[in-house]
Amino acid sequence: MHPFDPIRPEEITLAASILKASLPGISLRFKVIDIQEPVKQHVIPYIEAERTGQPLPKPPARLAYSYLHRLDTHAFLKAVINLDTKAVVSLKELPKHIQGPVDVDEMIGLEIVCLKHPKVVAEIEKLQLPEGVTVCTDPWIYGTDDEAEHRRLVQFYMFIVPVAHPQSNHYSLPCAFSPVLDANSKELVRIDYLPTGRGHEVSAETQPWKPVKAVEYAHELLETPLRTDLKPLVVQQPEGPSFSLDGHLVKWQKWRFRVGFNYREGLVLYNLTFDGRNVFYRLALSEMTVPYGDPRRPYHRKQAFDVGDVGLGITCNQLSLGCDCLGHIKYFDGFRIDSEGRPVHLKNVICLHEQDAGILHKHTNYRNGEATVVRNRQLVVQMICTVSNYEYIFAWVLDQAGGLEFEVRATGVLSTIPIDDAEGLDLPWSTPVGPGVSAPYHQHIFNLRVDPAIDGFNNTVTYEDSVPLDPEEHGVEDPYGVGYVARTTVLDTAGFADTNVELGRVFKIRNDGIINAVSRKPVAYKVQTVASQRMLMSSRSFNARRARFHEHAVWVTRYRDGELFAAGEFTNQSRVSTGVDTWAARGDDVRNQDVVFWHTFALTHNPRPEDFPVMPVERLSVHFKPVGFHEKNPALDVPNSQQGVNKSTLVEEVAKEIKEAKECCKL
Amino acid sequence: MHPFDPIRPEEITLAASILKASLPGISLRFKVIDIQEPVKQHVIPYIEAERTGQPLPKPPARLAYSYLHRLDTHAFLKAVINLDTKAVVSLKELPKHIQGPVDVDEMIGLEIVCLKHPKVVAEIEKLQLPEGVTVCTDPWIYGTDDEAEHRRLVQFYMFIVPVAHPQSNHYSLPCAFSPVLDANSKELVRIDYLPTGRGHEVSAETQPWKPVKAVEYAHELLETPLRTDLKPLVVQQPEGPSFSLDGHLVKWQKWRFRVGFNYREGLVLYNLTFDGRNVFYRLALSEMTVPYGDPRRPYHRKQAFDVGDVGLGITCNQLSLGCDCLGHIKYFDGFRIDSEGRPVHLKNVICLHEQDAGILHKHTNYRNGEATVVRNRQLVVQMICTVSNYEYIFAWVLDQAGGLEFEVRATGVLSTIPIDDAEGLDLPWSTPVGPGVSAPYHQHIFNLRVDPAIDGFNNTVTYEDSVPLDPEEHGVEDPYGVGYVARTTVLDTAGFADTNVELGRVFKIRNDGIINAVSRKPVAYKVQTVASQRMLMSSRSFNARRARFHEHAVWVTRYRDGELFAAGEFTNQSRVSTGVDTWAARGDDVRNQDVVFWHTFALTHNPRPEDFPVMPVERLSVHFKPVGFHEKNPALDVPNSQQGVNKSTLVEEVAKEIKEAKECCKL
Repeated sequence: MHPFDPIRPEEITLAASILKASLPGISLRFKVIDIQEPVKQHVIPYIEAERTGQPLPKPPARLAYSYLHRLDTHAFLKAVINLDTKAVVSLKELPKHIQGPVDVDEMIGLEIVCLKHPKVVAEIEKLQLPEGVTVCTDPWIYGTDDEAEHRRLVQFYMFIVPVAHPQSNHYSLPCAFSPVLDANSKELVRIDYLPTGRGHEVSAETQPWKPVKAVEYAHELLETPLRTDLKPLVVQQPEGPSFSLDGHLVKWQKWRFRVGFNYREGLVLYNLTFDGRNVFYRLALSEMTVPYGDPRRPYHRKQAFDVGDVGLGITCNQLSLGCDCLGHIKYFDGFRIDSEGRPVHLKNVICLHEQDAGILHKHTNYRNGEATVVRNRQLVVQMICTVSNYEYIFAWVLDQAGGLEFEVRATGVLSTIPIDDAEGLDLPWSTPVGPGVSAPYHQHIFNLRVDPAIDGFNNTVTYEDSVPLDPEEHGVEDPYGVGYVARTTVLDTAGFADTNVELGRVFKIRNDGIINAVSRKPVAYKVQTVASQRMLMSSRSFNARRARFHEHAVWVTRYRDGELFAAGEFTNQSRVSTGVDTWAARGDDVRNQDVVFWHTFALTHNPRPEDFPVMPVERLSVHFKPVGFHEKNPALDVPNSQQGVNKSTLVEEVAKEIKEAKECCKL
Repeated sequence: MHPFDPIRPEEITLAASILKASLPGISLRFKVIDIQEPVKQHVIPYIEAERTGQPLPKPPARLAYSYLHRLDTHAFLKAVINLDTKAVVSLKELPKHIQGPVDVDEMIGLEIVCLKHPKVVAEIEKLQLPEGVTVCTDPWIYGTDDEAEHRRLVQFYMFIVPVAHPQSNHYSLPCAFSPVLDANSKELVRIDYLPTGRGHEVSAETQPWKPVKAVEYAHELLETPLRTDLKPLVVQQPEGPSFSLDGHLVKWQKWRFRVGFNYREGLVLYNLTFDGRNVFYRLALSEMTVPYGDPRRPYHRKQAFDVGDVGLGITCNQLSLGCDCLGHIKYFDGFRIDSEGRPVHLKNVICLHEQDAGILHKHTNYRNGEATVVRNRQLVVQMICTVSNYEYIFAWVLDQAGGLEFEVRATGVLSTIPIDDAEGLDLPWSTPVGPGVSAPYHQHIFNLRVDPAIDGFNNTVTYEDSVPLDPEEHGVEDPYGVGYVARTTVLDTAGFADTNVELGRVFKIRNDGIINAVSRKPVAYKVQTVASQRMLMSSRSFNARRARFHEHAVWVTRYRDGELFAAGEFTNQSRVSTGVDTWAARGDDVRNQDVVFWHTFALTHNPRPEDFPVMPVERLSVHFKPVGFHEKNPALDVPNSQQGVNKSTLVEEVAKEIKEAKECCKL
């Protein structure tokens, strides 16, 4: 067992039994049991011994943590358990205003409660739905609009299911009423009626449904036939993959890292080294929030924190060969718990495979036509998360030249609202996507937590701007006005910085203690940050105050154990951020220290009709590249691209090949 | 023969013979013979008849144009020839200050002249090179620093070739002297001595070379062995490609377009339609310029216009199966001329192939786990250009959902300068990349010319900003401060606009005459522009004045025949731009007109040591996507991703497969 290994089912069982024994006679619901991050200063000697091939010291204590929900008082508890000593390390009741995350069983249970509630049933009856047409509901995180609200609330958006097909697109047919339930008492708090015109006004009474055609995506429900002209494209690695595996340890093309998994962040990468040198200690998406730009009640509360409110790990798709993944694939499994504290096996939640991404480098000596061409083989570690209507595909992409990329692809179904079918109705914050249905503008705001280890665990964050040369400052004449230089700003103190396109700003994480012999500067990685729009909601809004990580593209903090999540540990119905902004505000010295780099980036998503009923991927990527970490291109030793290996084919020869293959089959 | 077909060898021969006959007794050097773009208003009826399946009208006249260089007066001539009537349409002598582009034969010829010139030979001798070590030269576009200079000049950067190997990296060993030749008289104008310290000072005398090791990229010259752990990755399309071909016409997944090729722009796409609807009339990279940030003489003149000064078509690599391209490939050839006006066959200059780019869209109904998953098959049309030291990979990537992307990848070898091997020497505009060698900061500034035809040839350019909702303006209360809307600005008059990250600015090209029934707005495509730094050189510099297209990210002009190149027709030793800035300044009405959209984007490239001796690709991409062009996702009809077709493999089963394959071989 390695300190960075994900939790195992027997550890879940052990932790649950320890907790049950510690809380005798108390009726409990288990929300989370997962691995507690090992204390960094305890784990470093262990992973450094591994890296340098020394005898391993004693591993740090194996800890788990748990969130529990008391069914009597409805208070949330947090416990930390030492799995080695089988002891409870800490157990505390959380303040009353804190709502733990939603769990899978809770959501499914509440869906049933909502749909069976007599007042909801009565409301559905008013729709006078035809035979075979039913109603379903997507429970939604309640969001926040009241400091004083202490109940655990869930908002249920209701949809008409036009046909009994498992993929019928109910998002095309949203209802104009939305029950709110107390998740603890299971009581109906009220039914919110949804505005369907330009203003906040709502209908007095739910009206009978006027049947319209849903915009379907399921192939069986399409009215037009599928394309028939897409030919198979097969990716094969007949000699196996270029990576080797040892449990969760992956070695590939000078890279070495560990694949982690937890209920909250899903995929985590640990202890990345390149050519035996430290590069990153830990990488994971720390938080994301999706606020909606519709000003009308109750939509102002639509703001999901998909990491903190729910958890990317428990929303991970269980992937299947040939459907989600193409090529030569390795899968990793994970475990979550059920509400009884029992392990639930999540099969194939992470996939690992190689891909070809065109040319990595090429040069032809034009004098003689002699060329060096190397292809860009990449390693992809990926998870796909379904968060109700939306899907996110998160991938780490490693390359052979020491670069790695965090890629986010958004797909799935837009969140929709009902609208009047009135001539000339235009909601300037929403795009109509079908009859009586519109998709409001929204933003996806991500925060990537980067715990660097550039040739060691003490690093410095800087940014470099490209600016015209100042002849006086640099002591060089510039008679033709062409000179430009890089101006470096060191982040000495914990805080923040912003992207700047006009200045060509590049962020770097460097190790001041190690000077590159060629560049004569500290070894570093640069971060190609995403320059993106900030949250559009007012700074006084709950949306902004709960997610203050949105305020700056880059935050730098001094490392402390337990500071992992940009909006804080508890985001569900949170009032304010308790995350990175508060840690950065400590103003710690972060020059040549154990620093953490947090990158916020966003997608302002004003939907297209083409994004419905299911959305072609929208892609964002953060790229990390060595800059003076090596003395030269570290991929010079990748063999040339060769037809003997690549076995490419000419279109003109296909007919012949097919013919030959057929003859071969006959033999 | 189609109006958009590239020039054919018999057309070159015909044009050359017509020109020779028209200019009897004049000693000529042929620089260019290529297709003259057909007059747009003549070609539209033809392509519209094609698109709608009507009888074809008479095609527009097939025209060629030529640049010629008089060897007596050294004046440049431009001729237009009607290939149908075999007549010269126009023939004019260009003003004395205009220098035609460089041609391949001219450059190679001048290299020999330079290296044999007694004064250059004498200078080389001063290096006292050991046996087996030689010198080569890269002729460079001279750039501009003098309005009065009318000679055709070439600057020769000199390099030491340390070993007689066809891929020895001479860029690692730059010399500190640089001859300037008159390309017409072949006379040595002077030898520029290069500064090697911080200032403009140069050595009095060329010194004997102090041998240092070159940083090599050729595998045979590396001192370390190649990686042995990269396993084959094979992409196959056993049933052939999903595209069909008819000459230069390509049909693929609802797309239909023509592949064009010319000496200057290389790859051009014409007449792109999707599902039978017009999308773009013509797409090509119109210009690029690479100014260097080194203020010292003569480096201030380092500013190449790789399209206008040389031509991407004539620098295109002749690609080979399995080396440059992976998978199932179709190649297109091209033709250039030699200095005698004879056709030269350029084999495999454009490649066409499909690739898999992960998932295109996915949604899982979490209630039952039923998923729709469609993979993102793409079609790539690509060329690779070698411009002396650098390589550019340009590709158009089409997708199944109506999107297309223009991708630029920069690779090759950095342009280098000699530096003193002095302790503490730091050039703030340059990165040391080896002993005695440094790579100056520079910018790659591209301009993409987009001639749109969104559902017709009259279009309007707009941009949309996402801004907080103004309750008064929109007549809606926003009590929680969360509302935001899109604010549209129409470009009524020819001119320019800039990207704006803070406002989430999105550019759109729309057809005001056609309203989307779902979105209730004009059909449109959006352009995901690259937000990038402008040229850093002073606006008074020749660099900036010659390339005024750099000043704005977007230019919009009213279409006129012949306006194709962002910096003007003649860029070699140009003094000022004669391009898009001058056309935009006409202030034409561009609302619902035949408009052209020009996008300038840039890469500020402050080299990393890792970019040497050959650079891992740096990637930029401009993405075009339908926005309310369709009523819903146009890729809904792509069949689901299926293992039966994809034939993916599990890593765990590989050993077994390999074993079986071996047994099969024995049989």
